[in-house]
Amino acid sequence: MRTIEAVDFFYLSMPEVTTEGDGSQDALLARVAAGGLVGWGECEASPLVSIAAFVCPMSHGACRPVGASVLGQRLEGPEDIARIAAQIELDSMDLLQAPHIWSGVEIALWDLLGKAREQPIWRLLGYRQSFRKLPYASQLFGDTPGQTYARAVEARRHNFRAVKFGWGPIGRSDLQTDIEQFESAREGLGKDCLLMIDVGQIFGDNVAAAAERLPKLTQIGAVWLEEPFHTSALNAYASLAKKSSVKLAAGEGAHNFHVAQHVIDFGHVGYIQVDGGRIGGIGPAKRVADYAAAKGVTFVNHTFTSHLALSASLQPYAGLRSDEICEYPFAPKPLARHIAGNHLERDAEGYVSAPDAPGLGITIDTEVAQRYLVDVEIKVKGKLLFASSNQMI
Amino acid sequence: MRTIEAVDFFYLSMPEVTTEGDGSQDALLARVAAGGLVGWGECEASPLVSIAAFVCPMSHGACRPVGASVLGQRLEGPEDIARIAAQIELDSMDLLQAPHIWSGVEIALWDLLGKAREQPIWRLLGYRQSFRKLPYASQLFGDTPGQTYARAVEARRHNFRAVKFGWGPIGRSDLQTDIEQFESAREGLGKDCLLMIDVGQIFGDNVAAAAERLPKLTQIGAVWLEEPFHTSALNAYASLAKKSSVKLAAGEGAHNFHVAQHVIDFGHVGYIQVDGGRIGGIGPAKRVADYAAAKGVTFVNHTFTSHLALSASLQPYAGLRSDEICEYPFAPKPLARHIAGNHLERDAEGYVSAPDAPGLGITIDTEVAQRYLVDVEIKVKGKLLFASSNQMI
Repeated sequence: MRTIEAVDFFYLSMPEVTTEGDGSQDALLARVAAGGLVGWGECEASPLVSIAAFVCPMSHGACRPVGASVLGQRLEGPEDIARIAAQIELDSMDLLQAPHIWSGVEIALWDLLGKAREQPIWRLLGYRQSFRKLPYASQLFGDTPGQTYARAVEARRHNFRAVKFGWGPIGRSDLQTDIEQFESAREGLGKDCLLMIDVGQIFGDNVAAAAERLPKLTQIGAVWLEEPFHTSALNAYASLAKKSSVKLAAGEGAHNFHVAQHVIDFGHVGYIQVDGGRIGGIGPAKRVADYAAAKGVTFVNHTFTSHLALSASLQPYAGLRSDEICEYPFAPKPLARHIAGNHLERDAEGYVSAPDAPGLGITIDTEVAQRYLVDVEIKVKGKLLFASSNQMI
Repeated sequence: MRTIEAVDFFYLSMPEVTTEGDGSQDALLARVAAGGLVGWGECEASPLVSIAAFVCPMSHGACRPVGASVLGQRLEGPEDIARIAAQIELDSMDLLQAPHIWSGVEIALWDLLGKAREQPIWRLLGYRQSFRKLPYASQLFGDTPGQTYARAVEARRHNFRAVKFGWGPIGRSDLQTDIEQFESAREGLGKDCLLMIDVGQIFGDNVAAAAERLPKLTQIGAVWLEEPFHTSALNAYASLAKKSSVKLAAGEGAHNFHVAQHVIDFGHVGYIQVDGGRIGGIGPAKRVADYAAAKGVTFVNHTFTSHLALSASLQPYAGLRSDEICEYPFAPKPLARHIAGNHLERDAEGYVSAPDAPGLGITIDTEVAQRYLVDVEIKVKGKLLFASSNQMI
């Protein structure tokens, strides 16, 4: 019987972390060992807090550390991953951060299972084929419309047929400035390029402020308007969806299947965006993909870090031919680039696919990655609960 | 101008933490200092992970530590608390644990403001009067129906006119055992005592399993059935609500206003239960109380620890006369009892009220509390981010 013998975490960080919002400043890798095999996964968001959720002392019966439900568990098949997930849901019910650390571990378990069975994860999920996806270059608005124009031209020069602009100054000054930003993005891209707009929850739950931007978004032919509101502000999403001919996109903040389901059912989005590194991993992401398909909503990955995370995020909808768009970090920081030993490069026609290789099909370049390794030490009651390991190799 | 000069955290723990689920094994106190005054608050759930969320390094622009939005901020009135909360919502968007640490700090800010204005918090919230509440003794089912019966008799002996039984073996063996448990609770309490049943999310999202228990719950006249499902499983709540003449209660897991709103609107509960130590503090809890009142849903506090937390949880609905029921820890562990220097004891008729005293109206017995203080040390990149202080006094 194969059991989970060890789970190690590697907190990697750029030498300098900025507020830019380009999403690639740090990373938390999870490595799982079982039965002589190793699997890798990546968590999204605060490495320190996520590690703490794995090793913290038990607060009470419904607030146990995630590690208590993982270490020593049987790992023969996908049903074991689901069983562990259910255990965490009960035993770490009051530990809000739990899904954020479990996500990376869950992905690593799938990677390990895929290696054990010599199958890509998408096959373990029941897909027969991994359909190619059209990657969109995901990048930030410039500080000025001129900068945004230049970035759009640059993305086209790299042959991207789809580009997303996000965050930056949108919603932070006035309507006219935003309109100029939207126009510059379209002008720089030209007519035929798909254009998505992401405003990073800037309107909170202010429907009127978001609605003012709709006519221009319609005019420039935006594929979607992403995250006008707080992840939980479903009533605001529903109100805006009613007024909008541009489809809404959201869901990256979903930390379990149900939250994504509510974004679909009550927020009335046209695109559901799932980050496998937050929602609890590949299992719940696949469940969202199935649910979205049944509801006529398009599934899109949310990925802003390494190609390990990118492969993990493609698996849940690899077999859905019609859900073709995929997020693709355009200009990753060196860390995000260096984590993976191989990359999901675009083919001659500009498409990418989840690899037809065991597990995630991504190797970790431990030698390079460990240059970014951050020292962490967590002690409680005089006991060392976590110390960073430099044993990546 | 008054600014927030310091925020200190005190992780207190029972010498031994058990899986019992009686909710009182550890506690995290937050102390805020501003302009020569001090306020106290209490967070609910994992102290270590919550502390990490306050001090963690920035991961990226939308994943900053909660402390960055709090320290040095202006604190003149409630509008400042709301402003800081909005800042955290944006800057710690990707930090799932953020509301759990912010809750305790937010409560401490209200306590401090109340002291500055020499007003109870419920007055700062706009209420003119603090209506008395009928406390229910919150306790666990026994391992056997016989034990449950004995606990029910004991609660009546302490003159409780309302009692809640929760967790324990319910849903873990068979239907008949659960039925016997429910019957024993009612028999031990006698006919006239209010009886609530809490099953601690044991049915996941399995509506049929929960529905099987309804006839008996109706027969014993249960006031509500609490948390049959996962906090996020709103469709399951809605399905069960349709079948049930017993009202449903849920919401303690809500980590922001919107989540509680969805439990009301999409889960169709009759009672919305809010833990101020998780939902982001007193501000969002009051917003839920207002929303619930408008929707004809009854607000109830969720409190399972100290009387500091109890006072904080009463403030948001102190002025709502018709929402009369309140959760009241029946047999707190010594730690939970010792944190507070004064207690909200029941009056001659068995009622409790939010105190008519500045702030929360609760003093902290620092001398006794600090006997439970836990050593914590968090280091990242060689820098000490947190060290427990023994400077409570």
